Amino acid sequence: MSELEVFFNPRSIAIIGASNNPKKPPYYLVKNLVDLGFKGKIYPINPNEKKIYNIPAYSSILDVEGDVELAFILLPSQIIPQITKECAKKCVKGIIIGSGRFSETSIEGKQYIDEVLKIARKNKIHIMGPNSIGVTNPYANFTTAFIDIPKLKNGNIAFITQTGAIGGPLLHWLMPVSKTICLGNKADIAIHEILEYLELDDNTRYIGIHCEQIKEPSKFNVVAKRVNEKKPIIILKTGSSIFGSKVAKSHTASLTGRDEIYDSLFQQIGLIRVSTFEEFFDTLKLISRRGYLEKGNLGLVSISGAQCVLACDLCEKYNIEIAKISKNSSDKLKKLAINDLVLLDVGSWQGEMNVEDLYRFMTEIALSEPNVNYVIVFLIPTPKLFYFDVPRLFSNLQKKYSNKLLIICMFGEENICLKWKKALENVGIITFPSISRALKVISYFRS
Amino acid sequence: MSELEVFFNPRSIAIIGASNNPKKPPYYLVKNLVDLGFKGKIYPINPNEKKIYNIPAYSSILDVEGDVELAFILLPSQIIPQITKECAKKCVKGIIIGSGRFSETSIEGKQYIDEVLKIARKNKIHIMGPNSIGVTNPYANFTTAFIDIPKLKNGNIAFITQTGAIGGPLLHWLMPVSKTICLGNKADIAIHEILEYLELDDNTRYIGIHCEQIKEPSKFNVVAKRVNEKKPIIILKTGSSIFGSKVAKSHTASLTGRDEIYDSLFQQIGLIRVSTFEEFFDTLKLISRRGYLEKGNLGLVSISGAQCVLACDLCEKYNIEIAKISKNSSDKLKKLAINDLVLLDVGSWQGEMNVEDLYRFMTEIALSEPNVNYVIVFLIPTPKLFYFDVPRLFSNLQKKYSNKLLIICMFGEENICLKWKKALENVGIITFPSISRALKVISYFRS
Repeated sequence: MSELEVFFNPRSIAIIGASNNPKKPPYYLVKNLVDLGFKGKIYPINPNEKKIYNIPAYSSILDVEGDVELAFILLPSQIIPQITKECAKKCVKGIIIGSGRFSETSIEGKQYIDEVLKIARKNKIHIMGPNSIGVTNPYANFTTAFIDIPKLKNGNIAFITQTGAIGGPLLHWLMPVSKTICLGNKADIAIHEILEYLELDDNTRYIGIHCEQIKEPSKFNVVAKRVNEKKPIIILKTGSSIFGSKVAKSHTASLTGRDEIYDSLFQQIGLIRVSTFEEFFDTLKLISRRGYLEKGNLGLVSISGAQCVLACDLCEKYNIEIAKISKNSSDKLKKLAINDLVLLDVGSWQGEMNVEDLYRFMTEIALSEPNVNYVIVFLIPTPKLFYFDVPRLFSNLQKKYSNKLLIICMFGEENICLKWKKALENVGIITFPSISRALKVISYFRS
Repeated sequence: MSELEVFFNPRSIAIIGASNNPKKPPYYLVKNLVDLGFKGKIYPINPNEKKIYNIPAYSSILDVEGDVELAFILLPSQIIPQITKECAKKCVKGIIIGSGRFSETSIEGKQYIDEVLKIARKNKIHIMGPNSIGVTNPYANFTTAFIDIPKLKNGNIAFITQTGAIGGPLLHWLMPVSKTICLGNKADIAIHEILEYLELDDNTRYIGIHCEQIKEPSKFNVVAKRVNEKKPIIILKTGSSIFGSKVAKSHTASLTGRDEIYDSLFQQIGLIRVSTFEEFFDTLKLISRRGYLEKGNLGLVSISGAQCVLACDLCEKYNIEIAKISKNSSDKLKKLAINDLVLLDVGSWQGEMNVEDLYRFMTEIALSEPNVNYVIVFLIPTPKLFYFDVPRLFSNLQKKYSNKLLIICMFGEENICLKWKKALENVGIITFPSISRALKVISYFRS
């Protein structure tokens, strides 16, 4: 078993710096573990409290009777070397340091972390962080994210990130995950070590990496290439600008390298590199549902001809091939005076069909075309005009044509958009707020 | 007075093809005008109904006793020439044709519209459309959009669009407008004619144009250049791809030209050209609040260092200058062990300040810097962590520093994001769903 297993599924965890004040983040460390039903032992450490969230608290980790496998520390940096010593005495195997302000801000900070590392190495303790929110593993009801997380959902994507603010908690709203790992300043554990762990993790099928720096590129190179062949990796590497590099240094003490070097490195290994956080999450959302998509043979159904025109412009730009429609389908459409691809403005629709039937008819033609690989449907959610259950219509169509991928793009009244989005994504249908965002994601895939 | 005034503020309107069925779009034509409190006379025309939405209906426009200035027609294309003749008899001054399927789909359609134009020209009637949802003028409680529009808000942007599905109704959710004009297939009225109208419209200060084609480029050139100097114009010109051109032709019978020609045309005139609908609406949202922005001297406050790093990368790419912070502010930040630009992870914040005070302190430093022109604040809306009234905090700060522009970017729990967005935009603070989207908009402005 990997030595890192203790970070993902510890039999016992000490929360050093736990709090009873719900206005402070450390409160949620204990609360989440208790409420989520984590099965391991939880030891809150705080010399000023008898109990934390109704669990007996200890003055020091040394007062704990049983073994402690993992420690999470959220305390000022200057006392962490001392705490690390205590953890070593207690034979802790892993430490996650949540606190920031070590090497990212001062020379003293650098000294503290160096001391921590010295103690850790001597005692064979692995360190995650500093400046990390640690790990989430829904399959063990386990998280060290220090914000309120009422529920975890089992997914198939693992996220390795450099930053807690994005990497951890957000994911629980965005999509189910297999693991999240926030490496923070990566003083000890590096990305490729986590990749080696995830390579063997049965619940992880896809991997997203956000980083500002890759510390040992040659090791990363070998491991990432191997893992990517089994578990596709999407990477967001930031810090390419001169100023961004400076901020990255102060943020997570990363020395960011020249961007072109990374570009060619990722290309060699075969990783997909994206440019923004939207693209990062959008791309992972899509592949987590369907794996890699072949970007050819798109079918397009739209209430708006204008959106189709822009979509065609973007398809040409991104080299995405729009499917040729068969004569049979084309004839069916012509009977209704509908063009090959563009749905007539539902607003000005004069035919016999109502809005619901029209959408069903159009989407079904696209999905049933043998040449079509996936279908984008564009909707403008509008009060009253959509009197029928829109998410249900599309979830039924997705079920009926389960070998095709249905993507719904919505831009309209925001409360309706959000409601439909949640309903659709709950039954596994992917949504985007615009066709251009959907096509941008698809542009990253191969023809 | 412009001959086009009748489209924006008619003393009387006939709705030809009105309906009592709320599942059909024409129902909303009469309903909207009545419920919004339009002061002109409304004449629903439908031979099968006595009343439409409780207003007396007529079998034909010729049965109406009083004058009719404007007619809106939503009927199958083959009978519109006949209806146009009746409108001419009634001395109607303007006709909006909502129906599609004229020249965009068939030779017969082309014949019908040619006949309509012949009658119209002979009788000095202006035609808007076909395939148009017409006009919205909140200052006259007037709209011909055929979806439910419960409320209109007075704004300072006019939108000229080619398509109803985007141009009209959507705007009422997105932002207040001064006018919306959907030109559809532009069989008669052209963009430059509308620009001439808007040039003299006191309520319009900014103009957004979406089009797939510009029919008389030389006239457009002269008028757009002149108008743009007084009322800045943002343009979204689509249909650049070969396939997009084909779809554009079938959508609104537009012959789209080579894209580079348009690029150089717009550059000559000085228009800002954007690439997607998001950018179109985002850019107009921003300038409608503050006019053109000088893109230098950005201040950045972020809960996430990672977002700052990406922001710096994008600023370098887009040539956006980040403000240098004064020594005074820098010293204040250092006392709290905060870096120049990057807000410490609120999550791992160990100081005395609570989350609310920390945000106030950071944002206020940025806003009060003499070098800072505008400030982007990045938030990750998180349940429980934001126990205070976030929109109120920022609206108070915007009031206090009213000469600076505050932009809030939010990416987090979606219900909270939407709630805060609405509250913030209600008090005039601009929001974006990501820093990258905000910076993309800012990239279009001049240094």
